[in-house]
Amino acid sequence: MKLIRYGQAGAEKPGVIIDDIRYDVSSFVADFDERFFTNGGLEKLKQYVDENAGKLPTVSNDERLGSPIARPSKILCVGLNYADHAKETNAPMPSEPILFMKSTTSLTGPNDIVVTPKNSTKTDWEVELGVVIGKKATYVDEAEAEAYIAGYVLIHDVSEREFQLERNGTWDKGKGCDTFAPIGPWLITPDEIGDVNNLKLWLKVNGKTMQNGTTANLIFKVPYLVSYISQFMTLLPGDVISTGTPAGVGLGFNPPIYLKHGDVVELGADNLGEQRQDIVAYEKL
Amino acid sequence: MKLIRYGQAGAEKPGVIIDDIRYDVSSFVADFDERFFTNGGLEKLKQYVDENAGKLPTVSNDERLGSPIARPSKILCVGLNYADHAKETNAPMPSEPILFMKSTTSLTGPNDIVVTPKNSTKTDWEVELGVVIGKKATYVDEAEAEAYIAGYVLIHDVSEREFQLERNGTWDKGKGCDTFAPIGPWLITPDEIGDVNNLKLWLKVNGKTMQNGTTANLIFKVPYLVSYISQFMTLLPGDVISTGTPAGVGLGFNPPIYLKHGDVVELGADNLGEQRQDIVAYEKL
Repeated sequence: MKLIRYGQAGAEKPGVIIDDIRYDVSSFVADFDERFFTNGGLEKLKQYVDENAGKLPTVSNDERLGSPIARPSKILCVGLNYADHAKETNAPMPSEPILFMKSTTSLTGPNDIVVTPKNSTKTDWEVELGVVIGKKATYVDEAEAEAYIAGYVLIHDVSEREFQLERNGTWDKGKGCDTFAPIGPWLITPDEIGDVNNLKLWLKVNGKTMQNGTTANLIFKVPYLVSYISQFMTLLPGDVISTGTPAGVGLGFNPPIYLKHGDVVELGADNLGEQRQDIVAYEKL
Repeated sequence: MKLIRYGQAGAEKPGVIIDDIRYDVSSFVADFDERFFTNGGLEKLKQYVDENAGKLPTVSNDERLGSPIARPSKILCVGLNYADHAKETNAPMPSEPILFMKSTTSLTGPNDIVVTPKNSTKTDWEVELGVVIGKKATYVDEAEAEAYIAGYVLIHDVSEREFQLERNGTWDKGKGCDTFAPIGPWLITPDEIGDVNNLKLWLKVNGKTMQNGTTANLIFKVPYLVSYISQFMTLLPGDVISTGTPAGVGLGFNPPIYLKHGDVVELGADNLGEQRQDIVAYEKL
């Protein structure tokens, strides 16, 4: 099953995609949020969709898509989780996962504009596989971790490298700027993702391929990450784990390449769909 | 005005304290959350309370208090914001504020137990002044910052130093464990806080004073912090900024002193009230 949220930003309605056609399910569920996932919403929704096949109202492909999940309690991110990316940023290979958080106010739709913040000169791209939590997870064993996953999403982990690395303190300053977390186009449930350890991920800037990786190269795999993070904090239904990015980010070039007003970023991954963002400088909004 | 939330954890009701007596206001407002602060809730509540003086139902002092605000979109924290604390941790004086985030799942009531996580040996204390945001704040000027503040709270920024500093990555790992953010007992509105730059803060472990500071020693003051953080991300109504801790944390002793099962922590600050927590090891829950 593929879940979407469509309509105006801040007023999205829930929907599903079946055989490439979008359907509205807002008469059955209010939103894809913590409450939905907590209360077995995915199973109930699947049953509702099956029982109403052919009767659901369709949604135009022209409708804007928002993030397929409502604002979660947190977006946890894993740093340097692909060996090739750790190398290009001159960072040592992590001995255990590096964690940081993206402010949930950075959440935006997959094809919305990405705004380079005021005074930003080092806004960078990162295509990532995201994991959406399906039930409350505290001290989860790695062997049990898959039962805590509601589905997978494509995430653009936009990053301001000066704010992240040169402005004193933790990475959070350069990771949570407004519009820095495009998620979507859809959430795909685990039964349809295929081999989560063999998904190609790619990202282009102005048509030129910059990232071309595969989740086969993840240093720490998804079940390990769910288990690991749950040792430090409780993950709530609807929470997102962004699993890290492969090589090819702007910071890795010599000299580095950063996003500027007017650039176009496209990204995608097997079974996770595609995103397209116009880059807009805050000063030109 | 002083706002409280009382009752069972997860099912708290909103209330106010007037002349040391607790009153229920749940028939007027659902909760002290983003929606409440966004829609001018504070002003409407003040009017309601004034108009119904003497008629509001009272609440027993035996009722448990929760955090005076519902789970916010984020808890932003400022590191090393008192010169004496920076010195005791052997950290250089920050040239600009150090920011990190506490997972909002760490939020708990002011007198609830604090749980040292599984395998934790370095759980530490930090008494802090917290600022609650009253309206959406993006690129706010320092001179305008006070208009964005709903009120102030007492925060215990509990920290696991091994998770924070020795486990690879940013500080977030050791700051957001469950029960690591007791907030309360109340939110006090700016008109009643007095001089926010002259509040005494103290913390005792098992009756012995460990921290004894004053907000007069804040390196970066509250309006500067609101303005500064709003350059990196949008602050939403109900969001919390924890402004840092004065000297006297466990990490600063030689050898360091950490919290263990059975310890009792008490803390307080001028006009912000007091907290008391029993320390419980996860293994003994």
